[in-house]
Amino acid sequence: MIEKITQKIVFKIIKERFINEVPFLKLLGIKVSKFDYPDVEMVLDWNNDLVGNIVQESLHGGVTATILDSVGGLVAVGNFISREKNLTADYLKKRIGRMGTIDMRVDYLLPGRGTKFTTTGRVIRAGKRVTVCRMEMHNDKNDCIALGTGSYLWSDGKYYTPK
Amino acid sequence: MIEKITQKIVFKIIKERFINEVPFLKLLGIKVSKFDYPDVEMVLDWNNDLVGNIVQESLHGGVTATILDSVGGLVAVGNFISREKNLTADYLKKRIGRMGTIDMRVDYLLPGRGTKFTTTGRVIRAGKRVTVCRMEMHNDKNDCIALGTGSYLWSDGKYYTPK
Amino acid sequence: MIEKITQKIVFKIIKERFINEVPFLKLLGIKVSKFDYPDVEMVLDWNNDLVGNIVQESLHGGVTATILDSVGGLVAVGNFISREKNLTADYLKKRIGRMGTIDMRVDYLLPGRGTKFTTTGRVIRAGKRVTVCRMEMHNDKNDCIALGTGSYLWSDGKYYTPK
Amino acid sequence: MIEKITQKIVFKIIKERFINEVPFLKLLGIKVSKFDYPDVEMVLDWNNDLVGNIVQESLHGGVTATILDSVGGLVAVGNFISREKNLTADYLKKRIGRMGTIDMRVDYLLPGRGTKFTTTGRVIRAGKRVTVCRMEMHNDKNDCIALGTGSYLWSDGKYYTPK
Repeated sequence: MIEKITQKIVFKIIKERFINEVPFLKLLGIKVSKFDYPDVEMVLDWNNDLVGNIVQESLHGGVTATILDSVGGLVAVGNFISREKNLTADYLKKRIGRMGTIDMRVDYLLPGRGTKFTTTGRVIRAGKRVTVCRMEMHNDKNDCIALGTGSYLWSDGKYYTPK
Repeated sequence: MIEKITQKIVFKIIKERFINEVPFLKLLGIKVSKFDYPDVEMVLDWNNDLVGNIVQESLHGGVTATILDSVGGLVAVGNFISREKNLTADYLKKRIGRMGTIDMRVDYLLPGRGTKFTTTGRVIRAGKRVTVCRMEMHNDKNDCIALGTGSYLWSDGKYYTPK
Repeated sequence: MIEKITQKIVFKIIKERFINEVPFLKLLGIKVSKFDYPDVEMVLDWNNDLVGNIVQESLHGGVTATILDSVGGLVAVGNFISREKNLTADYLKKRIGRMGTIDMRVDYLLPGRGTKFTTTGRVIRAGKRVTVCRMEMHNDKNDCIALGTGSYLWSDGKYYTPK
Repeated sequence: MIEKITQKIVFKIIKERFINEVPFLKLLGIKVSKFDYPDVEMVLDWNNDLVGNIVQESLHGGVTATILDSVGGLVAVGNFISREKNLTADYLKKRIGRMGTIDMRVDYLLPGRGTKFTTTGRVIRAGKRVTVCRMEMHNDKNDCIALGTGSYLWSDGKYYTPK
């Protein structure tokens, strides 16, 4: 009983503080509309500043990549919280703060046009170390604009890149 | 001789007008520092608005994806111009305006930290229809932050996505 | 009426001749179990020669990649046939013979273990030039072993790779 | 001094036993021609059984994926051995036996034609948990046939895939 309440609060805190305070998401106007597990959804309203192709008047592919990556990471976090017993604030902050994207593939299916974009995701592989997610972005006409697959690492903070 | 001058002007026009007028690149502060073929380079100065991970104080993965995708597309355009004879303004605008990313993979190697980020790219497959490019982003310490591979389509504008 | 019969025959011929005569699929024991549009399915029985990890006694990732890529290509062909009016044998052979994979991502979700593996796919973007497909492989317990996303090019045969 | 000898022997044992006993690599005729760190190379002679496209008479994309994935995994193992002090036979077998590909992207640049194919790789990110590698395959004319990027997990063996 206590645990369920704790999880609920954790989802609430992460949604409100952690996510809504991410500067780049604020810059783009991306908002978390649903955050529970397994339901995660982010939304973005059209904004002329987000245009990448001025001939087609469509979103920059980087906007699409931003929301797909964010949803993938948030789904991975939701899955982690739903499985984890040890939900102290410090532990969560440390674990989530070190979580990072290893790699992501984006498939651009249609030009990013519409008044509102909704992105959802789901876990396809959940591990202690690596979580893999699939994400999809639709516009307000329910056209699928893009699909993504991302691999997320629960790092212990020690790694190096060879020169 | 005329052709070479024409190409030079084309590169200059695209660099000045087309690229520097892309709203999303302006929002992020991404600039084209080199645009010729095969030399393409884009730069980005650190800006607190671009943070994605507030614990690590690093760039959002979407910022990285944005600059990688932009450089990949620009390298593909540079390669196209360098091969094409028919360089009328209308033809170019039509062709380049319809060029789009099919898919992209990003590998995130290190947290995006630094004062300045420089991204370059090269063509690995050049076709009439599809150009594939590899891109890399380094910070001011020359650490490789991320690598990308993108496939770009020279579309004729007719396609559909199955429901 | 005539067209439908023609399409039916085309699917039958491709299934019997083209696909079942591919040497590498024969070597591995991969068979086309369904080929119509949109239903495409390939199956593979367990075989000790296909082991990649001798500790885990699981399929080599290359076996998985082989069947995923084959199904993706076949789904793309099925989609092409279903849309195309001009179904002469020569035209088909030329078009399909030049179709090739541009790129593919494979996500390995579980070790490839089981007595029989079934792979299906679907088109996520269908264009005149590029078809993008998603594929999935399950074992006989219906565990999802791997997912794939592949981009396929309907080439005109002229391209080069820069040195 | 002792450690260096031990590492040398470890590389030799892995090359001889572990790798050359992998059934699927034997079936295809893929051999380890170099295995040290950072030098890893695998070779494959042309063989009619490996054909995927009978019109183009080129390798099946799955053959290419097989050798790219194998080289990527072997480079990851080489990197692991070169960094690890604790080189008992049991520990190595356990660690390497559990190492697996999380995901891989293959870019097919040219039809797989030639008499001999040579594949090499390098680590682009080395972590305690995840190693990311890039691989490339050339034919006997030194044409680059394909490039790959793979992420490899040093698993502790506990993971699940959500239904």
